[in-house]
Parts: sequence; structure tokens; C-alpha cells
Amino acid sequence: MQTRRGVVETPVFMPVGTQATVKGMLPETLRQIGAQIILGNTYHLYLRPGHELIKRLGGLHRFMNWDGPILTDSGGFQVFSLGELRRIDEEGAVFQSHLDGSRHQLTPEKSIAIQEALGADIIMAFDECIPYPADRAYVAASTARSGRWARRCRHARREGDGAALFGIVQGGMEPDLRRRSAEELMAIGFEGYALGGLSVGEETSLMYDVMEYSLPLLPEEAPRYVMGVGTPENLIEGIARGADMFDCVMPTRNARNGVLFTSRGKISIKQARYREDERPLDENCSCYVCRHYSRAYLRHLFQANEILSSVLNTHHNLHYYLHLMASARDAIEAGRFGEFRREFHARRQNVES
Amino acid sequence: MQTRRGVVETPVFMPVGTQATVKGMLPETLRQIGAQIILGNTYHLYLRPGHELIKRLGGLHRFMNWDGPILTDSGGFQVFSLGELRRIDEEGAVFQSHLDGSRHQLTPEKSIAIQEALGADIIMAFDECIPYPADRAYVAASTARSGRWARRCRHARREGDGAALFGIVQGGMEPDLRRRSAEELMAIGFEGYALGGLSVGEETSLMYDVMEYSLPLLPEEAPRYVMGVGTPENLIEGIARGADMFDCVMPTRNARNGVLFTSRGKISIKQARYREDERPLDENCSCYVCRHYSRAYLRHLFQANEILSSVLNTHHNLHYYLHLMASARDAIEAGRFGEFRREFHARRQNVES
Repeated sequence: MQTRRGVVETPVFMPVGTQATVKGMLPETLRQIGAQIILGNTYHLYLRPGHELIKRLGGLHRFMNWDGPILTDSGGFQVFSLGELRRIDEEGAVFQSHLDGSRHQLTPEKSIAIQEALGADIIMAFDECIPYPADRAYVAASTARSGRWARRCRHARREGDGAALFGIVQGGMEPDLRRRSAEELMAIGFEGYALGGLSVGEETSLMYDVMEYSLPLLPEEAPRYVMGVGTPENLIEGIARGADMFDCVMPTRNARNGVLFTSRGKISIKQARYREDERPLDENCSCYVCRHYSRAYLRHLFQANEILSSVLNTHHNLHYYLHLMASARDAIEAGRFGEFRREFHARRQNVES
Repeated sequence: MQTRRGVVETPVFMPVGTQATVKGMLPETLRQIGAQIILGNTYHLYLRPGHELIKRLGGLHRFMNWDGPILTDSGGFQVFSLGELRRIDEEGAVFQSHLDGSRHQLTPEKSIAIQEALGADIIMAFDECIPYPADRAYVAASTARSGRWARRCRHARREGDGAALFGIVQGGMEPDLRRRSAEELMAIGFEGYALGGLSVGEETSLMYDVMEYSLPLLPEEAPRYVMGVGTPENLIEGIARGADMFDCVMPTRNARNGVLFTSRGKISIKQARYREDERPLDENCSCYVCRHYSRAYLRHLFQANEILSSVLNTHHNLHYYLHLMASARDAIEAGRFGEFRREFHARRQNVES
């Protein structure tokens, strides 16, 4: 995938940097472990420190010392997650800040303006992430409105700066509504297309079904991004169904909760069984953490609530995700992704279960 | 100073690694910014994860991935800080854990055994850190008892492993009691000598007085360590009075509270004045943080309560302390420490006051 800040090899996982930082990680370390592109959150950065401030300071890349590509979400997902604190109409959404209760409006035009001020290389259209379950009438109305918003986003975009605008396919778990949404977006024309409204509580098989029938609707020459997904298994299954891009807080959030990914499954490092365990987290892992620290030490840091616990755990989990994607790319290039996928599932089992 | 893990150049500042980690710092980064030796806390490591566990896992160095020298305190300072939770007699101290209320006894012999199990390169004698103010009778009795404990520590030490044992001069703010304590310790014989009972609430001038009359009492060929001190000014004044070693939580704890050291004084990064300040923390600083981040970004991280705030702030503050000590060593070697000291004080003023 070509961006204005260089080529991104796909399939790619994008670490989430909500508040102008991937929690606990130096940008240099992100690079070292293979991060190519990171995600910033429009909602959070708009509220604090403010997109205008970041723009005056030279943009998000300079502000946070990351010179690779940045994709920003539209803010819609966070706003719609506010529940009682927000109201939605044709114009956009009115919401109260989770920080201080102040009132704000977010519209397609405003979302684009914020993302442009931040200096995002990939800008996401403003849409509503439909909850699950939802009745078909609501899904249809919401998806149609997100389609109208997508057109307003396209019009609002300042062209000629090299940043890309991605449209987001909604339609809930309804195949015909997904198809209609995809067709509307393609008629408008975007530099890339995302599937929204997944990982919202639906069964995994349903998520895979939606990927299976929706991804082939999208143009093959454009990047296809499955938003907010997911587990290592979800990523591999997404790739098998044609997805190119993923983001998820799972590796970073789990890390801070002491849940660590290994080639054989998940580990909850706080368990007493690791108290004197001299082994690295994952004997098959080449990351800095696995080369230098024992499970016993990582458990101690977690129990003692030490900052280094989050730092080392995040490093390992992101390395796991990024290395998994690099391995998937290698397998695809070698024409053996099917085999890679089978081996991956065979190896992955929850080591604690 | 020769240790069994190599030479330490003095005067030296030792970052504090209470729970088998210098909070927020990778060992590699500590090395990069010039840390030569770090301090571990016997009380904390004894309670969690336990010195026997650390010993079975190959010692503290291996456990925390730090191959430089480690000095451990005796545990006395923390135990005596517990207030109502502890009781002291000739044998030692009985205390309740701040973690779970369990009862424990710490004696000179036990303190030495714990520090040996941890694998400390420099072991501190078990003593009572006398509070300030304290009446002369109490100071005299406590200091005499600490002297008897020092002798028990010397006897308890397993010789032949190359680790050093340091005695700790007490005596409160009483010149004659300090002298008597120093003489007693020298009669027993230690590889190094510390001044304890400073930085306990006394006026700065009183602290300097105690250093001034106590440090010259100690053998010039042995390292002289002023425990728990202090501000950058305290360090320079300590060096001027003959101190070789220092430790203090100030750079690391202040960092987590957003208080940052610069060549011109202290900065509280949360202040609104730094909201859009593009400058580095300290224009005279060559550290990673000052080369890559603005005050505005550091303020944002602090306001957003981000992990990276503690990480970057700690990096900068420790770099400041370690660089200050390196500059002092250079000045001493060049025979211009007096000039260095005057310039340091002239430059340092609180930039916010």
C-alpha cells in the first residue's frame, strides 16, 4: 500500500496510539519491532490536547515523534460509545466530553477537518458504528445515513495533499445492506475501504461470514481494512478472506492487564504457577522481552504494579502481533498461506486451558 | 571505586530500583545514560517476591537483567519508617508488612543474609535511621545500638565472595556522637562508610554541617556514601565536603509527579504555560527526551496520565543527575571543581519562581 509517507506492506496490523502515544512504547521501539503504521484517535486528540494545538505544533507526527504513516479514525466510534452522553441526527452527533462534560458537535465535515489538522496520512470517513444486535430497520436507516455522511466527507476533503480518504462499509450483519453500502461507497470513490461494525459483540462465526461476503465486494486494487479486529485468530481468518489492514487495542490493553500472547496461546502472567518460572514468555519468540526476562520477573513486575510491567508486556504483545503479520506476508509471498494458516491454528491452543 | 562487578567512577549517583526495577527504565537505557551502579531495597524485595526466590532464580542481577554493580540497603530505613507497624529492641526490629500485615523480624544477621541472597555487590549494615528532631539521650542510645548491630553485621558476613560491607555512621545532629559512631565503625573495619540519618527533615545548612564535620573523620581510601541525599545542590555540596556516593528517589519520584530538573532549575510540566511550548525541557540537555520531544508533548502526556509520561520524565531526570555527576568528575579531574561549583549555583535558579 502506497501512502504519502512511504510504502506499507500488507497485510498489516496497526498499533493503536489513542492519545498521541502507543501506551508505554517509544516510537523507536515500535519501529524496531516492525510497526509500519499506527492509528490515532480523533475523538481523544480533539478533546485533549486539541487538534488545533497539534496543528500549530507541526502536526501529530512531529508532536509524538513518529515519522511513519498515521491513520486516524473519524471519532464516530468513540462518540457513539458514549451512550447517554450523545445524540445523533442527520447533521452529525452532539456529545458531552468524558473528561469535563463540555458539549461538542461532530459532523462529517468537522471530522475531516480535525483529521486534516492532525496531519493524518489516512483519513477515515465519519460513520455510525451500529451496535449488535440491532433491528433491521435501524441498521438500514443508519447505514443509509452513514452513506450520506460518506459523500459529505468526500466533498469536505481538501484534495491535493496526498492523504488518502477511506470509506467505511456498514450494514450490520445483513448481507444485502452490506452490499448496498459497499456499492454506494464505490460510487462515491475512495482510496481505500473499511468494514466497520465488526467486533461489537457478535459471534466469531458471524464476523467471519460478514468478512467473507463483504470483502469480495470491494475493489481489489484498493486496501481493505477490517476495523477494530481482533484476536490473532481473527487476523489470520481476516487475511484468508481478503483483508489487508487491522487495528485493535487487544495486544496493548491485554498487556497492561497481564494477558500475554504466545505462539501456543494466551498466558495470564499474574498466576501463581509463574512465580518461579525461569522460562521466557514464549520460547519461540525472539523479542527483547523474551531474550532477557523470565516469566517470574514479569509476574513480579505485574504483582508489584510496576511501570516496567506495562512497558515489557506491551513490547512483547505488539511484537507478537507484528511478527505474526510479517510471517503471514512471507507465507503469502511464498504461495503457502493455506499451510501457514493450518499450522497457526494447530499450534494455537490456550496453554492454560 | 573497585567492586566485584568492575570499577565505579566517583562521585557517583545511584538510581533507586526499589522493587527490582528502576521505575519505568529499561536496564539498557540506564546504561546508555551513564548509570554505573543502582540501589535495591532489601525490605521490599524481602517481602515481594522474596529473597530466597530471587536467589533460586540466580540473584537480583539476573532477575532484573542488570549486570552492573548493585548496592542494597539494609531494610532498616523502610522498617523504621513504618511507624506504628514496628517495634525495636536489642535483637532487631519486629514489623508488619505494608502489603498484607504479616509479621516479620529483621535483625542484623537476617539483613546480611537477605542481602547476600540477593547477590548485592555492596551490602549495608543494619542500623536505625534516627528521626529528626530527636532528643540527645535517644540519639546516643540508638547510635550505640546501631554500633553493636554493625559489629554483628560484620560477624554475620560470609567473607570471600568479593562483596563489600559498608558501615553507617549515625549520631543525629550531634558532632560528638557522630565522631564516636565513626570511630566505632572504623575500629570494626568496613570496606566503605556511609552517613545515615540525613535528609530526614533537617534544615539544609544543618545537613551540610553534619557532612562537613563527619566526612573528614572517615578513611580517605574508603568510599564515603551520603545516604538518601538529595537535590542537585545537595550533591554538589556533598562532593565539596568529600562525599563519593549518593542515592535518592528524588529524580525518579519527581519525574512521575511531573517535576523535571533542568540546568536552570525545576519545571512543573503540568503548568498551563507549557501547553504550546515547542522547546525541549532543557535547551542545554543532550538526552533522548530533549532531542525528540517538546514541553507541550510532555505536558500532554502528563495531563493524559500516560505511561510514556513517567518513562520520558524519568529518563530525563536521571540523565540530568548522572550527567551532573559526570561533569563534577570531569571538573575534579581537571582541578577546577571550585569553579564548576560556583558556575552550577549561578546557573541554578528556580525558573518558575
